[in-house]
Amino acid sequence: MALKARALYNFQSENKEEISIQENEELVIFSENSLDGWLQGQNSRGETGLFPASYVEILRSRSGSNYTDYSSSPAGSPGHDSFYTAPPNPGIPYQGSFEDDDDDDWDDWDDACTVVEEPRSAPGTNGHPSPSLQYPAAYGHHQHAGYHPKPALERQDSMSSSKRGSVVGRNLNRFSCFVRSGVEAFILGDVPLMSKIAEVYCIEMGSKGPQWRANPHPFICSVEDPTKQTKFKGIKSYISYKLTPSNINSPVYRRYKHFDWLYNRLLHKFTVISVPHLPEKQATGRFEEDFIEKRKRRLILWMDHMTSHPVLSQYEGFQHFLCCRDEKQWKLGKRRAEKDEMVGASFLLTIQIPTEHQDLQDVEDRVDAFKAFSKKMDDSVLQLTNVASELVRKHVGGFRKEFQKLGNAFQAISHSFHMDPPYSSDALNNAISHTGKTYETVGEMFAEQPKNDLFLMLDTLSLYQGLLSNFPDIIHLQKGAFAKVKESQRMSDEGRMDQEEADGIRKRCRVVGFALQAEMNHFHERRVADFKRMMQSYLKQQIVFYQRVSQQLEKTLRMYDNL
Amino acid sequence: MALKARALYNFQSENKEEISIQENEELVIFSENSLDGWLQGQNSRGETGLFPASYVEILRSRSGSNYTDYSSSPAGSPGHDSFYTAPPNPGIPYQGSFEDDDDDDWDDWDDACTVVEEPRSAPGTNGHPSPSLQYPAAYGHHQHAGYHPKPALERQDSMSSSKRGSVVGRNLNRFSCFVRSGVEAFILGDVPLMSKIAEVYCIEMGSKGPQWRANPHPFICSVEDPTKQTKFKGIKSYISYKLTPSNINSPVYRRYKHFDWLYNRLLHKFTVISVPHLPEKQATGRFEEDFIEKRKRRLILWMDHMTSHPVLSQYEGFQHFLCCRDEKQWKLGKRRAEKDEMVGASFLLTIQIPTEHQDLQDVEDRVDAFKAFSKKMDDSVLQLTNVASELVRKHVGGFRKEFQKLGNAFQAISHSFHMDPPYSSDALNNAISHTGKTYETVGEMFAEQPKNDLFLMLDTLSLYQGLLSNFPDIIHLQKGAFAKVKESQRMSDEGRMDQEEADGIRKRCRVVGFALQAEMNHFHERRVADFKRMMQSYLKQQIVFYQRVSQQLEKTLRMYDNL
Repeated sequence: MALKARALYNFQSENKEEISIQENEELVIFSENSLDGWLQGQNSRGETGLFPASYVEILRSRSGSNYTDYSSSPAGSPGHDSFYTAPPNPGIPYQGSFEDDDDDDWDDWDDACTVVEEPRSAPGTNGHPSPSLQYPAAYGHHQHAGYHPKPALERQDSMSSSKRGSVVGRNLNRFSCFVRSGVEAFILGDVPLMSKIAEVYCIEMGSKGPQWRANPHPFICSVEDPTKQTKFKGIKSYISYKLTPSNINSPVYRRYKHFDWLYNRLLHKFTVISVPHLPEKQATGRFEEDFIEKRKRRLILWMDHMTSHPVLSQYEGFQHFLCCRDEKQWKLGKRRAEKDEMVGASFLLTIQIPTEHQDLQDVEDRVDAFKAFSKKMDDSVLQLTNVASELVRKHVGGFRKEFQKLGNAFQAISHSFHMDPPYSSDALNNAISHTGKTYETVGEMFAEQPKNDLFLMLDTLSLYQGLLSNFPDIIHLQKGAFAKVKESQRMSDEGRMDQEEADGIRKRCRVVGFALQAEMNHFHERRVADFKRMMQSYLKQQIVFYQRVSQQLEKTLRMYDNL
Repeated sequence: MALKARALYNFQSENKEEISIQENEELVIFSENSLDGWLQGQNSRGETGLFPASYVEILRSRSGSNYTDYSSSPAGSPGHDSFYTAPPNPGIPYQGSFEDDDDDDWDDWDDACTVVEEPRSAPGTNGHPSPSLQYPAAYGHHQHAGYHPKPALERQDSMSSSKRGSVVGRNLNRFSCFVRSGVEAFILGDVPLMSKIAEVYCIEMGSKGPQWRANPHPFICSVEDPTKQTKFKGIKSYISYKLTPSNINSPVYRRYKHFDWLYNRLLHKFTVISVPHLPEKQATGRFEEDFIEKRKRRLILWMDHMTSHPVLSQYEGFQHFLCCRDEKQWKLGKRRAEKDEMVGASFLLTIQIPTEHQDLQDVEDRVDAFKAFSKKMDDSVLQLTNVASELVRKHVGGFRKEFQKLGNAFQAISHSFHMDPPYSSDALNNAISHTGKTYETVGEMFAEQPKNDLFLMLDTLSLYQGLLSNFPDIIHLQKGAFAKVKESQRMSDEGRMDQEEADGIRKRCRVVGFALQAEMNHFHERRVADFKRMMQSYLKQQIVFYQRVSQQLEKTLRMYDNL
């Protein structure tokens, strides 16, 4: 049975793999599964090829599927509710994979009504840094989220379709995050300026270039006491974490699913900001002590990164998450955050940039340097992660085993020395036996040591893997914006565009450029602090460890003194 | 072609696997390869079975082999020369394996005339402690040396054959070291008392039972400066060691072959004494630095054991080895040692025992306890050897590699941090890079560490493997003697033997029992001292090592202080 779809907007083919589609045109879809946000199908003129999945709605008979309601009315809800939020149904083909990835007790009946509205991110984008960030594959990183709750731009597209012929062409290629994120629309001036903009995020010029203005009310927040809770008479259980923001000093209790809700809000809202990934989910054993400990440690680092970020730390949804203690208020606040209009492309409207002139080519060069750096850093972080993971395995396995075998062998020697009593020297035998036990202890110390040093290193590295994996897309936004500036300037030079319009594009491109540089600056600042702390902590713990080993051995050596 | 042999002496079958042979009887040999000192063949009466290889000579046509001369005149040399020394040719089937084992430049032309007379021990007895000493297989340990230079007793056998009917029967079973060592002959009173016995080794009663009287002129001897020497214009080269006995304080220079000569003299002479094995030979790379170092370390331990032994340290051949600096004197001394009559069974004549009564059953019990102990100790020494050897491999391989990989990963991090210069923190980058180098150094420290600790442990363990592997045979001698006492007492009780003769057997058995107990005592005394030293040294070096590692890390940590 051929699957059909209706084109919601015009799309002009720009590559030979692509086909053009017209608004309202009926299309045949070859497969519901989109590839990097693209669907394959045939248009009414018999051309076959690719077109953006977000430009069409899949048509179904009402009796055929529960999802027909949604797909037949993609922008069905009235008012702002559906304007920047994703369609309530994230898309049929992804339903399965979301569930596969969902290990946390998502389907909580008591607040399911608010929960089911939350689109979840696809695997690989939500707390799942790819093990190796490979350019250019990483550019497609976010594109897997074909129905990802990134702001849909359909309304702007259709609104501004009349202008399209005269302005810079839209580039729809496989690296389409520029388009899907709304940044293209923003650059082209298609994102309408809201009358009231409550939020303002300022970028200032610092010693190392543009930087976010610091949060005027800085705070930190502890994550403590993961506690197993049950409900429905023990049928369902979950872990709650105690969060205490320093500016309130009164704790709230949050579950991973609350973190996940917040995380998705952040992804949704903060274009060009590298949102720290949540610690990864785990399919099994999520109540095991080690897993809970690991999640806690990583939530601490995540929280640390959130509170340290001048923009993210001020986000109203984050404040709500940190402070709300009333259930009714909680639901209201959630709804408010979900109805936030200043998300995605509109978020860019909230950014105030300095008046300083920046040569766009200089910005481009800086970004290129950062891109090369982040690629290299990602490689080296992966390398260190692999080495540290292997060291953990060695500590728990090989190292422990070797020392235990040595300990056992000493004990065997001592045991044999006991076997000829008249000649046996009890003091020596005891000392050797004790040496054996000491080496067994040393083996245990080796096995326990990763908890003191390598785990923290791996936690930090994991956070950075997540942050680094965000940058290819962010850099791509800036690249796309820069290309638009060059194209508009050329068109203006050729008299095919008003200089005013070209200047508008250049001005908006500056916003993207400043924001990216502020992010780069923030990233570097945090990186220096985090890696300094990571290295110091590792070395300190290593020193303590080797000192403890030698102290153990010294105590043992003393047993031989009076023989 | 059937191989023939001629019986040199009468042999009475005592087990169903054995056949009796008569002096001068012609025999068919099924294989030249003896099994534990036994040959399989057929006698002139058509009986097939086993008989002692040393009781026959293999017959060959003169044209068939170069060795016919030797095999047709097994006791060909006149006088004492061949009395206690083994036949010049150690037996055709073994020729090959001796050469296989000979890695040292044995065929030195300048003193080949004295050297070729030296029979060499078979593999497994000369400096080759079996990797695992297994009872009862170990009882057959020395029996592989079918033509081993243990004193041949053929002359006594034939001399005393007239008495044999009336006295205790000779037991010739597979565990025949009792017979071949001459101890049976000694017990039965067949070893003639020489008129002049210059040497006397006294056994006294100590707090833990019989012990050797201490060497009245104790000394130690250093082994130093292994130096590569060449001769014949560099065609041949060898390593010489500088030996400086403390009682002379003037060095001599000796090669491994001189040690080997001495070692064979010791094996030859000192029945019931556990002669320390020489460090093992090595087929290839004997001039490699590591091998030379290892041999030196082990020669030091060997020497230490020699000088500490009350009997071995006083041996004239040893003194000659340690002191002689004149080539002519050297050859004379060698010849003298080789003509020594007080070897093997006769050595037992040189032992003076206390008059204290010892209940033979008590002695037996003590020996049994020691036997169980030594078996267990051998197991545990092997276990520790395996663990320590594996640890050496881990240190040089896995441990080093892990730390190097960690070091490399840190350096890669530092390298990536250099890539975005405006944001790069040189001090941090340098500190991380230095940390990387530190961990590479730590890796090297791990790889070098076995030289400081595990090697000495393995040296000591190797020495003890050798010493322990001697005991099954020594214990067997005592067991054989004890059985003779019981047998003679029974015969005396039944009136089939003079009480006087039975008393003589009991008296001589006491000598063996006292000697073994003195050896046990000495072994335990040394064991306690050696293992205390080994453990202390290991722990001290380990402590130093872990302290050095933590010091390295501390120095590195300080680089992060002023960031």
